[in-house]
Amino acid sequence: MLSPNLLAFAVAALLVLLPPAPAVAARPIIAGKPGPSEAAATARWLAAQNTWGVLSTISSDLGGAPFGNVVSYSDGVPGEGRGIPYFYLTTLDPTARDALEDERTSFTLSEFPLGTCGKIDPENPTCAKLTLTGKLKLVDLQSSDADLAKLALFTKHPEMKDWPKNHHFQIFKLEIENLFLIDWFGGPKPISPSEYLKYGRDKGSVKFS
Amino acid sequence: MLSPNLLAFAVAALLVLLPPAPAVAARPIIAGKPGPSEAAATARWLAAQNTWGVLSTISSDLGGAPFGNVVSYSDGVPGEGRGIPYFYLTTLDPTARDALEDERTSFTLSEFPLGTCGKIDPENPTCAKLTLTGKLKLVDLQSSDADLAKLALFTKHPEMKDWPKNHHFQIFKLEIENLFLIDWFGGPKPISPSEYLKYGRDKGSVKFS
Repeated sequence: MLSPNLLAFAVAALLVLLPPAPAVAARPIIAGKPGPSEAAATARWLAAQNTWGVLSTISSDLGGAPFGNVVSYSDGVPGEGRGIPYFYLTTLDPTARDALEDERTSFTLSEFPLGTCGKIDPENPTCAKLTLTGKLKLVDLQSSDADLAKLALFTKHPEMKDWPKNHHFQIFKLEIENLFLIDWFGGPKPISPSEYLKYGRDKGSVKFS
Repeated sequence: MLSPNLLAFAVAALLVLLPPAPAVAARPIIAGKPGPSEAAATARWLAAQNTWGVLSTISSDLGGAPFGNVVSYSDGVPGEGRGIPYFYLTTLDPTARDALEDERTSFTLSEFPLGTCGKIDPENPTCAKLTLTGKLKLVDLQSSDADLAKLALFTKHPEMKDWPKNHHFQIFKLEIENLFLIDWFGGPKPISPSEYLKYGRDKGSVKFS
């Protein structure tokens, strides 16, 4: 058995001999989350894993001020996200009314509620965040897009199909024109809407663990 | 001991004799969360319990589109929230740049990440959500307000005080002009900024469990 002195020496020697911890040590790699070099994958992961976010419109009630509202969404059935967020909104709520007057909208997601940021602060750049900006469009209920959207929404949000009929919920989708992703130090990652949307298409569908 | 048949009968009789479950049964009362009749208290509870939200500005980069961004905030040291959200932002990020050009801003919070909504959908009106709309103002670092803000921010977000000095983080606060709270069926609750801000002031400070 090692004497306490020898043990202390061995530990000290190990500490000296080990390479210094990398600067990223505070942010362990999370199983399932794409790495910081995979921007489009990370954006799609955020869109696939979250179930709610904040939809911001130009408020007609508040004279053109920005107005963010908590909404549920789905970008596909679980494990088969396509990146386009679908929403189930009623014009009893200001967000849908605003979008029908001025369709410029942004939709914001955070990694923080997924629980994978651990003790990292929600504003720390390594706790990923995504803002999709574009136009919020009403989806024609007779279209095949509407069938896909309903399946996507009602699978992730089962209670939606029982929401009051007389509230006249409608399906909306965001046509993405700009992406703002921060998932590491060094500022937002440049991703085009087409890079984001085509990610994983060659693999059939995007599967995140 | 009861025979299985007698037990089944007893259970059936109990089910028949019990009054029907109220419509709100799906949403149990949460310890610490104010009831649906206490709108200002609920809004202050959401502001006190959360540590991050989405700050929406009019984007100068995106030609006036709304732009929501994930940010950390604090409305006071834990247990002593005052309702006014303080932020620690850098103009390396578009949100602070936007606000310095056009101070119209909204700040959006959800009960969902607190974990108290349970299996209720994030868009269900009984899973509370709050949007504070107003003007985002830079706080003078020489003011007593700045001392309060720093204490509030650095207590809830300890890593902030070590964020890079050369990023020139500044303290901002939201001057609240309008509140949009949904915490139950029946549409948004009317609360004025003064009702919200004065809530609990007669009790010295607001303590939420």
